[in-house]
Amino acid sequence: MDSFDQLRARLGDLADVKAASAVLSWDQETYMPSGAGAARAQQLATLGRLAHEMFVAEEFAAVLSAAAEEVAGSPPDSDEARIIRVITRDHEKATRIPAKLVADLAQATALAQQAWAEARPKSDFEGFRPHLERVLELTLAKAEALGYEESPYDALLDDYEPDMKASQVAEVFAALRTELVPIVQGIAAADMPDDACLRRHFDAAAQWEFGEAVIRDFGFDFERGRQDRSAHPFSTNFAVSDVRITTRVDENFLPTALFGTLHEAGHAMYEQGVDAALARTGLDNGTSLGIHESQSRLWENQVGRSRAFWEHYYPGLQRTFEGALGAVPLDEFYRAVNRVEPSLIRVEADEVTYNLHVMIRFELEMQLVTGSLAVADLPEAWNAAYERTLGLVPPNDAQGVLQDIHWSFGLFGYFPTYTLGNLIAAQLFEQVQSDLGDLDGQIRSGEFAPLREWLRDRIHCHGRKFTADELLERTTGGGLDAAPWLRYVREKFGGLYGF
Amino acid sequence: MDSFDQLRARLGDLADVKAASAVLSWDQETYMPSGAGAARAQQLATLGRLAHEMFVAEEFAAVLSAAAEEVAGSPPDSDEARIIRVITRDHEKATRIPAKLVADLAQATALAQQAWAEARPKSDFEGFRPHLERVLELTLAKAEALGYEESPYDALLDDYEPDMKASQVAEVFAALRTELVPIVQGIAAADMPDDACLRRHFDAAAQWEFGEAVIRDFGFDFERGRQDRSAHPFSTNFAVSDVRITTRVDENFLPTALFGTLHEAGHAMYEQGVDAALARTGLDNGTSLGIHESQSRLWENQVGRSRAFWEHYYPGLQRTFEGALGAVPLDEFYRAVNRVEPSLIRVEADEVTYNLHVMIRFELEMQLVTGSLAVADLPEAWNAAYERTLGLVPPNDAQGVLQDIHWSFGLFGYFPTYTLGNLIAAQLFEQVQSDLGDLDGQIRSGEFAPLREWLRDRIHCHGRKFTADELLERTTGGGLDAAPWLRYVREKFGGLYGF
Repeated sequence: MDSFDQLRARLGDLADVKAASAVLSWDQETYMPSGAGAARAQQLATLGRLAHEMFVAEEFAAVLSAAAEEVAGSPPDSDEARIIRVITRDHEKATRIPAKLVADLAQATALAQQAWAEARPKSDFEGFRPHLERVLELTLAKAEALGYEESPYDALLDDYEPDMKASQVAEVFAALRTELVPIVQGIAAADMPDDACLRRHFDAAAQWEFGEAVIRDFGFDFERGRQDRSAHPFSTNFAVSDVRITTRVDENFLPTALFGTLHEAGHAMYEQGVDAALARTGLDNGTSLGIHESQSRLWENQVGRSRAFWEHYYPGLQRTFEGALGAVPLDEFYRAVNRVEPSLIRVEADEVTYNLHVMIRFELEMQLVTGSLAVADLPEAWNAAYERTLGLVPPNDAQGVLQDIHWSFGLFGYFPTYTLGNLIAAQLFEQVQSDLGDLDGQIRSGEFAPLREWLRDRIHCHGRKFTADELLERTTGGGLDAAPWLRYVREKFGGLYGF
Repeated sequence: MDSFDQLRARLGDLADVKAASAVLSWDQETYMPSGAGAARAQQLATLGRLAHEMFVAEEFAAVLSAAAEEVAGSPPDSDEARIIRVITRDHEKATRIPAKLVADLAQATALAQQAWAEARPKSDFEGFRPHLERVLELTLAKAEALGYEESPYDALLDDYEPDMKASQVAEVFAALRTELVPIVQGIAAADMPDDACLRRHFDAAAQWEFGEAVIRDFGFDFERGRQDRSAHPFSTNFAVSDVRITTRVDENFLPTALFGTLHEAGHAMYEQGVDAALARTGLDNGTSLGIHESQSRLWENQVGRSRAFWEHYYPGLQRTFEGALGAVPLDEFYRAVNRVEPSLIRVEADEVTYNLHVMIRFELEMQLVTGSLAVADLPEAWNAAYERTLGLVPPNDAQGVLQDIHWSFGLFGYFPTYTLGNLIAAQLFEQVQSDLGDLDGQIRSGEFAPLREWLRDRIHCHGRKFTADELLERTTGGGLDAAPWLRYVREKFGGLYGF
């Protein structure tokens, strides 16, 4: 076997072990009986360790470097050249972190997750504090081990947004913030739309069927995927031919399941759209969390909360939920699903204020990582930031600094990708509007193939071959930019809120 | 770490990889989207290969022999001594089969399964013949590699019934046959009970709920297990704390789901009952297929088709299916679920004639394995055996020699375990009746804990610590014996059919 084929065989084995872990995690969130938690945690730990050992093994390094030499003459954008580039990068990162640090982080985050779960309902930041301090300490050690040029934050961000720098994020966020804060203030001063029509009774099975019918129209392939229930919606990928989503259903609040389904289908269609030639290479996945989130947000918001979308689907929705919506005019419903209101909880935030929650977390993470803020002072800093940015002060830490699970997992550098996703969604949507002509008209007639194929050809099919910046450059001719999202928000919500 | 702890750590890793394979297989049969088959087959192949490599690695052999030396002084029935005994045995077998033969068998059986699936609906034995010849040839090579004293069949049987010999099976089967054939002839001559009451409409959800309520009463632990739908019922085990069953539902035939659920729950309670101290050792499983089948058959037949059981459950079943069963007296229903009729298809056979199907397969397998029957002559031999044994001639090979999938998987030596299970169920049931006194009265009042605990203490908790013969000796004071089953059949069906 040639060296590159040997590399592909090893990458295939790795992909299979990781797929098994993903199936076990999916099952844990969907069907696993309650008493199986400890056994499942052990199984996942073993598979994770085996995959890591296979990847950092000396034999792997030898095969990788022989393969790199063998295909050194390939065109720079070929699958071969890109597989070598991405895997070499992953491999270098994986070998830089000492095994002891990996184990310490695994243990500290397991304990921190448990402490967080106990501390949050009691609003007991002090109970969580020592765990967060330990996780932060180890996370900084990880950043040092990985190395960086400008800021330790770069090393952490790189796990979720390869090649992106904290300074780049800070610059874009600053531009965004300057313009966004007055928009939110303007909205807060306007009349709030009534969303009572969303808070009636909606049969769970009918909600499920309606959501699945919409994503079937979008192009989610049910031959290569499925939707199940879980406590928290997510999407996961066991193969290009097996991409699954989950959602939860609230019979007394229509948006939970519906927009959850559209959001996760956006993630899933990205992974269903990866070129089959990249299957089992480690490149058959989203290239960054920001690009991933752009796909979910685009289908959820730019499409799913647009007036054109509801002109198409609202009559059917009214027929399905005649009792709840039969007498509610389209405009009232459209305004309800686009209600904007500054609030304390990120996961419940609307499309416009959501980014402010993210910016607060980014700002605090930067201070924690660079040492200008101590963990002990975090609740105070959190509350001050919320007051300054959203005009609200959390009544307790449960609704403040303890609301997100991320830091207990050691996920520093993750939050900004949510806003990057929103911004990139708007950049891509502006481009696709210009490329396709009457996209709005297509959505109004339920014709999603042109949009989906545009995304597939330019984003999905490449998997991890190109970074977020490379994809933006290839697709829009420029880099990350907050302006398209601000234009989108001004146009849509300016109309709705009259500013 | 001591050597024995090192061994347990390695066995734990192996158990986790095998559990992952089991989850992937379970998902394949329950929820996996149709397009994911090829990717899943690849994932299962990789995990199977990794587990095999981990087990036959030189380091494993070194750890195993050091551990064996370390605990050499342990009492012979201690967990330590038994773990060493069972794992050493497994390890010797695994290392005896050359890697090339493992790979050839995997490939040949994959092709044979496909050929079988195509040949059966067309009743095309000739299309399947070359595949079966190849699988048999490789299976015989496997028997030679494993080694045997009396017959190559012993080496194959050993995978499913450790330590049992073909001569022992042949002897018990001969005794059984002599007495069973006239019983079946007697039944065939009697009036056939009418089972029309089972062939009405039974709502699927109500069937599901009823079956789950019964196995909850039995003691199936839903905190450490669950039931899902699949095309073919099965039970599987990811951990002592995660044992799952599946069934199928036929809305026009009540027994399919109900007895399927009771049967699989019997398998599952066995694995839920293994001592937690054996978790992740490779001994936390059934000790043989015969013992496993004894547990499923005991709950399905000795309990679930008894008059006492239906005296307890029939009023509730009538309330659930008022339209179908409201006017059907208990006696008519009881006779219907115990209808006996010689037939062509094993999986549809009743409790009494089932063993004749198994004996035919054992007889033919023995001839194939010892070379006295050629694959080409198999259909003719099959049909002759059915005529001689059950008085029926299959109209085609689909309903004859092509009906079972087993041989395409290379599962020679597997069939006898079905009958061993029936016989052992009767042996255990006779013993438990004598130990517990009024077992019939307990079943009549829905009190299953004494029976379940008796089985747990004597069979379930030991996992693979003792062989089938050892368990029978410890529990009944004797070895495998057809007499208790024959007594059970004569008493129950003698009453029903008046002989």
